[in-house]
Amino acid sequence: MDTNLTLHTDKYQMNMMYAHWKQGTLYHKAVFEIFFRKLPFGNGFAVFAGLERAVHYLQNLQFTQVELNYLRQQEEQYDEAFLQLLEQFRFTGNVHAVAEGSLVFAGAPLLRVEATMFEAHLIETALLNFINFQTLIATKAARVKQAAGEDQLLEFGTRRAQETDAALWGARAAYISGFHATSNMRAGMLFGIPVQGTHAHAWVQAHDSEAEAFARYAETFPNYVTLLVDTYDTLQSGVPEAIKVGQALAAQGKRMRAIRLDSGDLAYLSKRARQMLDEAGLDYVKIVASNDLDEHIITELKSQGAQIDSWGVGTQLITAADQPSLGGVYKLAAREVPGREGYVPVIKISGNPEKLTTPGVKQVYRLINKTTGKAEADYIALDDESDVQQGSKVKLFDPIHPYIYKYLDNYEASPLLQPVIVAGELVMELPTLQQIRAFHEEQKAMFWPEYLRKLNPEKYRVSLSVKLWELRQRLITENSK
Amino acid sequence: MDTNLTLHTDKYQMNMMYAHWKQGTLYHKAVFEIFFRKLPFGNGFAVFAGLERAVHYLQNLQFTQVELNYLRQQEEQYDEAFLQLLEQFRFTGNVHAVAEGSLVFAGAPLLRVEATMFEAHLIETALLNFINFQTLIATKAARVKQAAGEDQLLEFGTRRAQETDAALWGARAAYISGFHATSNMRAGMLFGIPVQGTHAHAWVQAHDSEAEAFARYAETFPNYVTLLVDTYDTLQSGVPEAIKVGQALAAQGKRMRAIRLDSGDLAYLSKRARQMLDEAGLDYVKIVASNDLDEHIITELKSQGAQIDSWGVGTQLITAADQPSLGGVYKLAAREVPGREGYVPVIKISGNPEKLTTPGVKQVYRLINKTTGKAEADYIALDDESDVQQGSKVKLFDPIHPYIYKYLDNYEASPLLQPVIVAGELVMELPTLQQIRAFHEEQKAMFWPEYLRKLNPEKYRVSLSVKLWELRQRLITENSK
Repeated sequence: MDTNLTLHTDKYQMNMMYAHWKQGTLYHKAVFEIFFRKLPFGNGFAVFAGLERAVHYLQNLQFTQVELNYLRQQEEQYDEAFLQLLEQFRFTGNVHAVAEGSLVFAGAPLLRVEATMFEAHLIETALLNFINFQTLIATKAARVKQAAGEDQLLEFGTRRAQETDAALWGARAAYISGFHATSNMRAGMLFGIPVQGTHAHAWVQAHDSEAEAFARYAETFPNYVTLLVDTYDTLQSGVPEAIKVGQALAAQGKRMRAIRLDSGDLAYLSKRARQMLDEAGLDYVKIVASNDLDEHIITELKSQGAQIDSWGVGTQLITAADQPSLGGVYKLAAREVPGREGYVPVIKISGNPEKLTTPGVKQVYRLINKTTGKAEADYIALDDESDVQQGSKVKLFDPIHPYIYKYLDNYEASPLLQPVIVAGELVMELPTLQQIRAFHEEQKAMFWPEYLRKLNPEKYRVSLSVKLWELRQRLITENSK
Repeated sequence: MDTNLTLHTDKYQMNMMYAHWKQGTLYHKAVFEIFFRKLPFGNGFAVFAGLERAVHYLQNLQFTQVELNYLRQQEEQYDEAFLQLLEQFRFTGNVHAVAEGSLVFAGAPLLRVEATMFEAHLIETALLNFINFQTLIATKAARVKQAAGEDQLLEFGTRRAQETDAALWGARAAYISGFHATSNMRAGMLFGIPVQGTHAHAWVQAHDSEAEAFARYAETFPNYVTLLVDTYDTLQSGVPEAIKVGQALAAQGKRMRAIRLDSGDLAYLSKRARQMLDEAGLDYVKIVASNDLDEHIITELKSQGAQIDSWGVGTQLITAADQPSLGGVYKLAAREVPGREGYVPVIKISGNPEKLTTPGVKQVYRLINKTTGKAEADYIALDDESDVQQGSKVKLFDPIHPYIYKYLDNYEASPLLQPVIVAGELVMELPTLQQIRAFHEEQKAMFWPEYLRKLNPEKYRVSLSVKLWELRQRLITENSK
């Protein structure tokens, strides 16, 4: 299997590259931005993730003879001189992006590409694919974390993930948002995420009795014993047999770690199991639960007083089951026009009002209230606007309902889009996964809890600058017939 | 990035392998089966896919020093002799499976692994991951195909797919179920799937006017012109400008291919666009539509008389948005026990009745009515039962409601599980993707349309043999306390 991702792109990108080449416009510069229009899951924020994957992709783009030979067979019959140009292809543009682990909101740019038309088209599909997925899963994981509080969270989804990469990058995204471990060993190996696992029902079935299966497992891993207790009957057989093992270990001075519940009424079973363990002197043995858990079920179970210490979350997290895609888009915001200075802002109108784009080369600032230290709003301005950088009083208004507004001063403006790649070269030290995870945790502390709750969160303000708003209005008028 | 998939597995598999090694039971043989408990999307069937991927995975399993060094760092401190054994690891077992493209049903085994406990554990996670995903997407694609009839179907989902592999293998799965092309060029290159694509809004925005953008695109690809008409205003600007291009091409003796609608009221816009094209003498120009389409929207649009020839289906298909996972499982069905001849059947009971497994080494037969040539039922029997193979009268009953039954004779019994790998060696010629796609189409013709419709399909019978039923009842009794 060829693992070169250079053709991990849509056919139309290649067609547009060819058309720009044919028309002599391939070296015209363009500014594209990635953003999403709506937060997923009804959440109050998203967690930006996928940047490191995007950076490695951009640095490794290269058409080999395998790709070129395939392109030679295309129906459109691309000219050989075009294919020779592709052979030299490297990404030589600039990328600005928000830091991974950041809390991000609808409508604000997450990543900005400044490159030739030729380069900028090729990379759209892959960048969206990487960032849409990891941001989606990191956001879902943040919701599960919101429900689980300080409990241990284990990502167990590989067998139900949408193929190999989803399992791998999904485990990474979940870890960013505060999961503690994954079951996926490749994710453990490649990213340094702690791995955890117990045994399957098949281990029990592979022995003549549950008692024998548990005893042999405990003999193998005397210091790391977690026993799955629901193969035959949780309370009649599984828990009593696990208790015998726990007591035998205790007699050797060892502590059994946990039992795992994987079916049935987890609220009732966990409470009964807790009681049985406690009465047997095994109050230190933890209870792990799994079985199609998500943030709603965890909240319900906790509200019923379930005695669960660790949550194994699989399918619902790794597929973001209630909304399995983030609608991130990559839109042209400005372009170089021969004979005109700087970038010319452009707009897309379309038949759906929510698909309107915001023109111009932009920066997004997080406005932090100097008194409280909390984030008040994100403020999107043209890249060269200085008012907000200098801390002048700014007007915050809702771009859809502009009559709702307020003024803000006494703030610190932190620009979120930071240079990542300049002229094709990485200009930042990519943070480690541990650093990204810690950064995410710090970022959450900058937001009032009303924005972070998972049900009916308060809407965080994302405002356009007045200049940007006026530019957009002007372009709508100019481009409407 | 290390692309070796040997550790694309759950931690607990490695723990169980270690425990079997430690306990000296690693070479005991086991029979595991993959099946799912419930059809996805309320569909009447699923389309089995993912076997080729599974075969390549099994043939390439190998622990290199990278994996072994990682395993040395594990908390459980696996013994060095165990790691040396892993270094020699190859899959040496047997695999029987249903052919890719087959229609398959809940409860019946899709794939059967016969291997040592040691080997059989390692591969569970990856096999499920591959087969769950491709079967899910192939099934979703079959539903879309059901809605679209003979229209062209284009898979456009890469940017919203759950990472790279999902885009790639999802394109393959969609093609098996009758999609005609994909936008994903890597899928085109690796699998020979036809690729299609037009241009993006950015192409239009990159020019001073829509007219200029269209003209230049047509100049580049005079024989393959499909124009996206909704960047500013579909009916006021996009379609009229596309018509001018179409007429200019016609004057050169060339035929414009299509226009593409990507937003707005697709029913209304397609009818108006059709009328405008026809009145301009461009009745041969096709209309392609996209924008979050799925089988329901396609059915609705067709019922409103929408004039759409080609459907670009993205997010909803590639993520199987209404049910983004198939709950396929891999369960121990039988095992070798020292001192006993043959395989001993085993069962799992659990706290959820639907999680009950069916014990024993099994075959599944498709019973074809000799008079009609149509499939009557799938019949699951122990591998050594001869009645059904000889065409004797069989009793068909619902395993959950056994009082519903009928008898069947005059049938041909076709065994669905066929040998794929024997003693680690591939023993079949893997069909080409074109062959799998054609096979799927033939298979559909063997089913009455009542089973194939996408809303409230008639339930196809999946029956257990009486012997198998009695075995299951006996093991439930023996394993209940």
